[in-house]
Amino acid sequence: MSLNALHTPCLLLDKKKLLTNIGRLNTHLAQFDVRLRPHLKTLKSVDAARYMLEDTSAPCTVSTLEEVKQFAQAGFTDITYAVGISEHKLPEILDIQNQGVTLHILLDSFEQAQFVHAFCQDNGCKLSCLIEIDCDGKRAGIAPEDPQLIAVGKILASNGLYSGLLTHAGGSYDCNSLDEIRAIAQQEQNAVRDAASRLSAQQIDSAIISVGSTPTAMLGDGFEQITEVRAGVYASMDLVMAGLGVCRSQDIALSVLTRVIGHNREKNWLILDAGWMALSRDTGIASLQYGYGLVCDEAGHVIPELCVNSVNQEHGIVALPEGLDLSHFAIGTLLRILPNHACATAAQHAGYQVISNDEMDYWPRFGGW
Amino acid sequence: MSLNALHTPCLLLDKKKLLTNIGRLNTHLAQFDVRLRPHLKTLKSVDAARYMLEDTSAPCTVSTLEEVKQFAQAGFTDITYAVGISEHKLPEILDIQNQGVTLHILLDSFEQAQFVHAFCQDNGCKLSCLIEIDCDGKRAGIAPEDPQLIAVGKILASNGLYSGLLTHAGGSYDCNSLDEIRAIAQQEQNAVRDAASRLSAQQIDSAIISVGSTPTAMLGDGFEQITEVRAGVYASMDLVMAGLGVCRSQDIALSVLTRVIGHNREKNWLILDAGWMALSRDTGIASLQYGYGLVCDEAGHVIPELCVNSVNQEHGIVALPEGLDLSHFAIGTLLRILPNHACATAAQHAGYQVISNDEMDYWPRFGGW
Repeated sequence: MSLNALHTPCLLLDKKKLLTNIGRLNTHLAQFDVRLRPHLKTLKSVDAARYMLEDTSAPCTVSTLEEVKQFAQAGFTDITYAVGISEHKLPEILDIQNQGVTLHILLDSFEQAQFVHAFCQDNGCKLSCLIEIDCDGKRAGIAPEDPQLIAVGKILASNGLYSGLLTHAGGSYDCNSLDEIRAIAQQEQNAVRDAASRLSAQQIDSAIISVGSTPTAMLGDGFEQITEVRAGVYASMDLVMAGLGVCRSQDIALSVLTRVIGHNREKNWLILDAGWMALSRDTGIASLQYGYGLVCDEAGHVIPELCVNSVNQEHGIVALPEGLDLSHFAIGTLLRILPNHACATAAQHAGYQVISNDEMDYWPRFGGW
Repeated sequence: MSLNALHTPCLLLDKKKLLTNIGRLNTHLAQFDVRLRPHLKTLKSVDAARYMLEDTSAPCTVSTLEEVKQFAQAGFTDITYAVGISEHKLPEILDIQNQGVTLHILLDSFEQAQFVHAFCQDNGCKLSCLIEIDCDGKRAGIAPEDPQLIAVGKILASNGLYSGLLTHAGGSYDCNSLDEIRAIAQQEQNAVRDAASRLSAQQIDSAIISVGSTPTAMLGDGFEQITEVRAGVYASMDLVMAGLGVCRSQDIALSVLTRVIGHNREKNWLILDAGWMALSRDTGIASLQYGYGLVCDEAGHVIPELCVNSVNQEHGIVALPEGLDLSHFAIGTLLRILPNHACATAAQHAGYQVISNDEMDYWPRFGGW
């Protein structure tokens, strides 16, 4: 297998690392009575999804209507669209459901519950709704103790539209230790358990109780009453996850292959043909700064102290530390850049050059809405 | 024309503003004896390029080999590939040149000049080379006074490979006033004039002397000895350009159409269906902070004090200031977000919904390398 034949920049996916990462989370969750519902928004690849899901009937999560369409078309039949629904998207949701897909939509307001109910009445149909629960004040969702929860639950349940609860601990990305992540994982589970028991007291039963983020999925335990766990980045991993301690940098399956295209002798800079267009503008989280990504050699080994310090559209700049000379990196040298945030870096590319021991493959990915 | 029929998020391009912006730079440069060589990397759209160039024989600039291929295939015949060349890309460059395209490549080292010369000898061909000049220490290029300039010029010129000089004042983005931009524009021109005269003293004549960035193109004057000016963002403009004073926010032709998909009542937040996937992670320049973009109403008028304060992959959060109530923005409300950086935001989308008085059109764009 020679990377030298590849156009640069391009996105590499190390298949062995991918499968190892997938296996790790599966093994962890196998200890508990809970199912994994992988989030497919990171890789957006049908080929990758086939390794993340047991079969096409296994549950999965997506973040756009385009993902719903693409994965439904690829035969996947149990999809949660985990972004708050707008009225405008309901006709397409119904179309896809009518193709035989079990589709769960998400909402967190009485207003949304009302228009979903009205749409179902008008169309003589049922849609499966999950109520989003806010477990950490980071984004959307109804707090478990908010009286609105009961009002939304009632209008849905009384019309046969209620399936359960979903929450996402976005706060797990701000943790400073594994113990903090474990605490957030408990907080995430407690929020939906609390909401479920408040609804249960009103005779509203939650068939689905869904939690998840990669850190809380990897480190959470117990999972009592929780029916499923969602995670996306776990398959590829990235520097944010390595920084949080959820994986090691050598577990990261994704990297951007780039070539040295110039030297700034005065400043001891390498110029790469991977700028923000190939790496994304994502700089990770404030407490863990690797510029625009850690630099590895062609074989994928991290070169200590080297990161992409700044980027333009098609240029990356690596400032060499003292003692490291430009002559070690002749123009044309291949390097790999580990991504800060896999979702963002992968989104800049049309597909993956999949590398395994002796073979190379290409897996397309899609974007759009 | 109803925006309500559009899927959100999507990218809007206001055709009237686009044409006005294009006209403005053309009018400015018409005062001088210099030609515009538009940079097509911002919009990456053949349809848009037809409005930026007089005809397919007019000069243009690109930043990737994929752009070279796409624009050559669309019939454009005078293309500068303005990113330092690597040896690996030369066979494709020659292929495209052999299709009848005048193609200029860029280099800034003796090493590159050597491998281009060797390639031309091996293939019995000539390639047109520009030497990149460093005018502000921001990225790549040879400083005008660096003796390497003469060495590179000589190996190219003696083999019939030398066409001229190119520089880019990336520093113009860091300016705090229009007068500073004007000073940088002079510095940019002086750098290549200086380099040209040093080469000229060695009987090496520069047929092309190319400068440019949108700020220095819009505000530069004189342009003595300069043969061409490059600019890309000028056609669409963005919040960085508005912040620099190069345009007004109402001149920005590009915006992301989004819908309100939720309310966080406790925090007085709007949740939008445009996150970083639709807006990009680009936060502009440090001195001009509009979060992830300024918020406009459906008609495109800026709503004072509103910007997208934070983003997740498919969620944008707008924190409403005191006195502005969530009830003004019912779930389903259409809003437009002005981009910090047009190149980055446009790159997140597959095409433009082009709006003019009564019509809508769709212009595809491409990505990749």
